[in-house]
Amino acid sequence: MSVAGNRQVLLKSRPTGIPQAEHFEIVDGPISQPGTEQLLVRNLYLSVEPAMRGWVADVGNYSQPVGIGEVMRSLTVGRIEASNLPGYERGEFVKGMFGWQDYATIDAAQIERKVADPDLPLSTSLGVLGINGLAAYFGLLEVGQPRPGETVVVSTAAGSVGSCVGQIANIMGCRTVGIAGGEAKKQICTDEFGFAAAIDYKSEDVDAALTTTCAAGVDVYFDNTAGAISDAVLRHLNVGARVVICGTASVSNWDPAPLGPRAERILLTRRARMQGFVIFDYAARYHEALAALTPWVRNGLIQYREEIAEGIEHAPDSIASLYRGENLGKRIIKLA
Amino acid sequence: MSVAGNRQVLLKSRPTGIPQAEHFEIVDGPISQPGTEQLLVRNLYLSVEPAMRGWVADVGNYSQPVGIGEVMRSLTVGRIEASNLPGYERGEFVKGMFGWQDYATIDAAQIERKVADPDLPLSTSLGVLGINGLAAYFGLLEVGQPRPGETVVVSTAAGSVGSCVGQIANIMGCRTVGIAGGEAKKQICTDEFGFAAAIDYKSEDVDAALTTTCAAGVDVYFDNTAGAISDAVLRHLNVGARVVICGTASVSNWDPAPLGPRAERILLTRRARMQGFVIFDYAARYHEALAALTPWVRNGLIQYREEIAEGIEHAPDSIASLYRGENLGKRIIKLA
Repeated sequence: MSVAGNRQVLLKSRPTGIPQAEHFEIVDGPISQPGTEQLLVRNLYLSVEPAMRGWVADVGNYSQPVGIGEVMRSLTVGRIEASNLPGYERGEFVKGMFGWQDYATIDAAQIERKVADPDLPLSTSLGVLGINGLAAYFGLLEVGQPRPGETVVVSTAAGSVGSCVGQIANIMGCRTVGIAGGEAKKQICTDEFGFAAAIDYKSEDVDAALTTTCAAGVDVYFDNTAGAISDAVLRHLNVGARVVICGTASVSNWDPAPLGPRAERILLTRRARMQGFVIFDYAARYHEALAALTPWVRNGLIQYREEIAEGIEHAPDSIASLYRGENLGKRIIKLA
Repeated sequence: MSVAGNRQVLLKSRPTGIPQAEHFEIVDGPISQPGTEQLLVRNLYLSVEPAMRGWVADVGNYSQPVGIGEVMRSLTVGRIEASNLPGYERGEFVKGMFGWQDYATIDAAQIERKVADPDLPLSTSLGVLGINGLAAYFGLLEVGQPRPGETVVVSTAAGSVGSCVGQIANIMGCRTVGIAGGEAKKQICTDEFGFAAAIDYKSEDVDAALTTTCAAGVDVYFDNTAGAISDAVLRHLNVGARVVICGTASVSNWDPAPLGPRAERILLTRRARMQGFVIFDYAARYHEALAALTPWVRNGLIQYREEIAEGIEHAPDSIASLYRGENLGKRIIKLA
């Protein structure tokens, strides 16, 4: 049984680079009542991630692409409206991959977790206590393996993942240097997120700035950009350095891969490691990270920013907007 | 006290790419008697490695470059002619970094080990039981971490390191695919060194050949070449793959680094790891590797080839000769 009234954002056509507003359409879909062991969820916040570029790409990604005409895949948090699933009650909040739409009828497998921290904004479950904080936590600690006293460099350092990486690295006793685009983001890195130093890649020579800010070399590079910024950081790697490849924001199209200076010789001579990272591989261990991140957020050791747009009509352009670098904080869309 | 009669190969000028014969000169130097806690060693075999290209380069390497006018740095094995070092007797054989010269007066720190396997050719201490076997052992097992049933691809697979990597991977229960240059080397890979399949990069399309020979993808890539061969292998990496960067034989000049397709997106989506490796970091653990390699060589589980040139006059051109791909087996120079 279903009724109308569910605004849904569908993938209309497949982008070759960054998805733009024109690749999506908003339709009025049905609200379907839950079947056996299902829930009906009213989405309250939709998440927007740089990684969504990959989710709609049919090459070079780690998951099946969203199909044309399907609801855009997205993490969301919402309120249970009706439940046929034991252990889940109407009125509780759940988070999961419920898609860019007002209402979702979901199975247990789509639920990532219940959200029950009434002292924290519900939206944090999508950002600093969601994919961004989780990626920062596991990417830095499991792949980057920083040790106290080491120098950790982060690209897109004012962003939702980067800012959290820097603050976790500080908690771990590292020295942190952030790279961000523009004077405003550079200031936020040092003033709000506690980076020991920051570099504006738009106005500074990154290589020269790294010589100044990382006089003892770079031990961990948390890479959210790839491209020329990474080429510069690689030249400063210490022996035994670790590079965490979390994102490739500076490259708009990977088909074919753009050319850059070969990294093999630097990796060889520095005995350095470069390793790709996808947060979803750690799904079974999210509770570990949340057990650490939640008190850090509560007691202010981790600061975060959110940019909340109201209305599903902001969704279609929201990924492109991220890549234009317009946001200062986690981009979230509030629905109700 | 010293007498003449020590032919020495000195570095005459600094090469910008691969060192050629003209970058060296042979001079008649002194034989110096050992001082306190020193040995006088008569070198019997000199080793030639691709890595020597890096040892004479003043950029992009992992050690202090050999100085102009200095004896060329080299691993050698020789006989003790005179000893003032307790525990070392005249007539015993020692191996170490004694340089391209007839005689070396050395301190204990320069000795890597005594060589006392009378059933094995002394020259093996420089190859399959020396730097090549050691690099294969630690590079594959510690950095590549192969598991039984996985597919291991090796570049310069007919070479001294590559052939040993393939055979160790076979011992570990992996499936091995070798990449080598020319039909003769391809044949040797399968017929002598036990690779399940081999690819001649000079006459075959490496990418297409990998599709055929590695239908289940590549789990470990032991990279001795960098360049276009590696670009092709990277496209076949499985999720969780490991790339061991052991050498960069296909690139003649790293100043500046040549351009190639950026690897970040493949590493990210495959959650793959690319890690540089320098064998000298494992010096304290050579005995572990030799405890495994020596019986494998004795009982024929590891086959090896040596190409022994007689006379120190072969030394100056020997590194360039390696890069011309002329050798079929470990290049060694016999002195006495």
